[in-house]
Amino acid sequence: MSFRIGIDLMGGDKAPAEVIRGIRGYLDQTDSPASLHLIGDPALANPLLEEEKIAASTYAFHATTEIIGMHEHPTRALKEKPDSSLAKGFQLLATGQIDAFLSAGNTGAMLVGSLFSIQALEGVIRPTMGTIMPKLNGGTGLILDVGLNADCKPEHLNQFAVMGTVYARHILGIKEPRVGLLNVGEEEGKGNLLAQATYPLLRENTSIKFVGNIEGRDLMGDKADVMVCEGFTGNILLKMAESLYDMAKHTGIEHPFLDRFHFENYGGTPVLGVRKPVIVGHGISGSLAFTNMIRLAEQMLQTDILGNMAIELAPKS
Amino acid sequence: MSFRIGIDLMGGDKAPAEVIRGIRGYLDQTDSPASLHLIGDPALANPLLEEEKIAASTYAFHATTEIIGMHEHPTRALKEKPDSSLAKGFQLLATGQIDAFLSAGNTGAMLVGSLFSIQALEGVIRPTMGTIMPKLNGGTGLILDVGLNADCKPEHLNQFAVMGTVYARHILGIKEPRVGLLNVGEEEGKGNLLAQATYPLLRENTSIKFVGNIEGRDLMGDKADVMVCEGFTGNILLKMAESLYDMAKHTGIEHPFLDRFHFENYGGTPVLGVRKPVIVGHGISGSLAFTNMIRLAEQMLQTDILGNMAIELAPKS
Repeated sequence: MSFRIGIDLMGGDKAPAEVIRGIRGYLDQTDSPASLHLIGDPALANPLLEEEKIAASTYAFHATTEIIGMHEHPTRALKEKPDSSLAKGFQLLATGQIDAFLSAGNTGAMLVGSLFSIQALEGVIRPTMGTIMPKLNGGTGLILDVGLNADCKPEHLNQFAVMGTVYARHILGIKEPRVGLLNVGEEEGKGNLLAQATYPLLRENTSIKFVGNIEGRDLMGDKADVMVCEGFTGNILLKMAESLYDMAKHTGIEHPFLDRFHFENYGGTPVLGVRKPVIVGHGISGSLAFTNMIRLAEQMLQTDILGNMAIELAPKS
Repeated sequence: MSFRIGIDLMGGDKAPAEVIRGIRGYLDQTDSPASLHLIGDPALANPLLEEEKIAASTYAFHATTEIIGMHEHPTRALKEKPDSSLAKGFQLLATGQIDAFLSAGNTGAMLVGSLFSIQALEGVIRPTMGTIMPKLNGGTGLILDVGLNADCKPEHLNQFAVMGTVYARHILGIKEPRVGLLNVGEEEGKGNLLAQATYPLLRENTSIKFVGNIEGRDLMGDKADVMVCEGFTGNILLKMAESLYDMAKHTGIEHPFLDRFHFENYGGTPVLGVRKPVIVGHGISGSLAFTNMIRLAEQMLQTDILGNMAIELAPKS
């Protein structure tokens, strides 16, 4: 059985047109596509599906009538709009009708849906979100958390390190990912109270390869693959990193390294530590971002990344 | 009377040669130089002073015999090496023999010296350090704190906003600096517990012009001039920003905007909220950085920036 990937056709500023173009892009890249479950308004979607020549045999359609706006209150919107494409996606995921779900819709609603419809893996205290960080050596690092957990405890960061390690191994293809604790200095003992208390936990954690503290100057460098911090610092770094691409556009600088900061290239940000793959896209996602989100969902399913996380994080009996 | 600026000749990886070349650079830029107080080992300094043709009439020399190494324990080193150039500088500053002090030596010792030899301005709970952030529109912003206070309370950030406003007004020449709270989202109510509790204090603070939350993508943008955060996030941003210049070198990108991230251009980082100007330089400072540190010290004295801060932060009677 091929994997069933749910796609919110109505999520994002450029939906549904760019979502459907992104599906076209995905289909063009593969001979054995996943089974796509498209969720949205058929009156809007059908002409675009025809235009992009997406054969009805390649997808199942789940018709919905409502849309959650980008600025609606997440919890309230999910509750009051059960027939929205976003709420429908989580219903399908929770009831096992799809295996993964992706949307560029209301971010808050995506997170609330992930945490409350799908629930955390056993043993996971706090699910997390990571983002990739281009490295100057051509490689790719992972920063997490990038905003799901603005306030954290040491044991949260310790789990983020494990989840990040599993993700880096299976999705980024790094055999033995090195974990660094993002901090204000290299030496043990440096940092705020959280970082100071986290260091010994990471050092003693046998599920990861801890390489010590890393600093802001090491983010694009080669010291660590998985870079752990609380979601406040991580979110600000994520958005600063993304702005480097805008900076290049603004100044007219053209360079492939700066192109790698364009979020469309990696598509979306997975929620890690929940029972099924959920991928949260940028509101301004274009077709390339959607193509890459579908591919990421497929890759997460193929590598059973969440099963692997569950094993690493299962409560020790 | 001209201002008396103390210069640690022995601080930094390239001392004393680059310090003395930096002094030459400063003298070349001005017709009425400040009174320079050079602190260090005369046997090492004298040949270099001759080589750079620095006339004895332009400086006073304070001979010292010891040096605090870059990796020594700050408090212990200051105590055990009273005849080091760094400790001597703080003695001269504390006893009123100089008006400002700058060094690229042991950063920890510089901070300990600032806090305990010079003391905070009346009403200041926590002195702070800021760094400038180049803006895409050609302007310059200020981020603070960037590492002096890894853990903060809302009232600390509220004072950083005031100190940053005074600095931006007098040193960066921004008439009415806009203060932004660095956060994970635009709306009030966003953020970690610290940011949530800080927002109302900034909003009610009549000494500043608060423009609300700013995000990581706004750091190089035009939303705010003074960007406030705790020193953990700020330090990581500072070092990431500095690494943009290294990134440009590494990738071969040449652009004036990225050149502005080269720390030598601004020289050093002032400690704000203590009674006298102290400027902390990078360990790897070259002559340009020293020139700019001397100029910054002079500018801080000329504008009486600390007097202005004292007025803004004086406890209300």
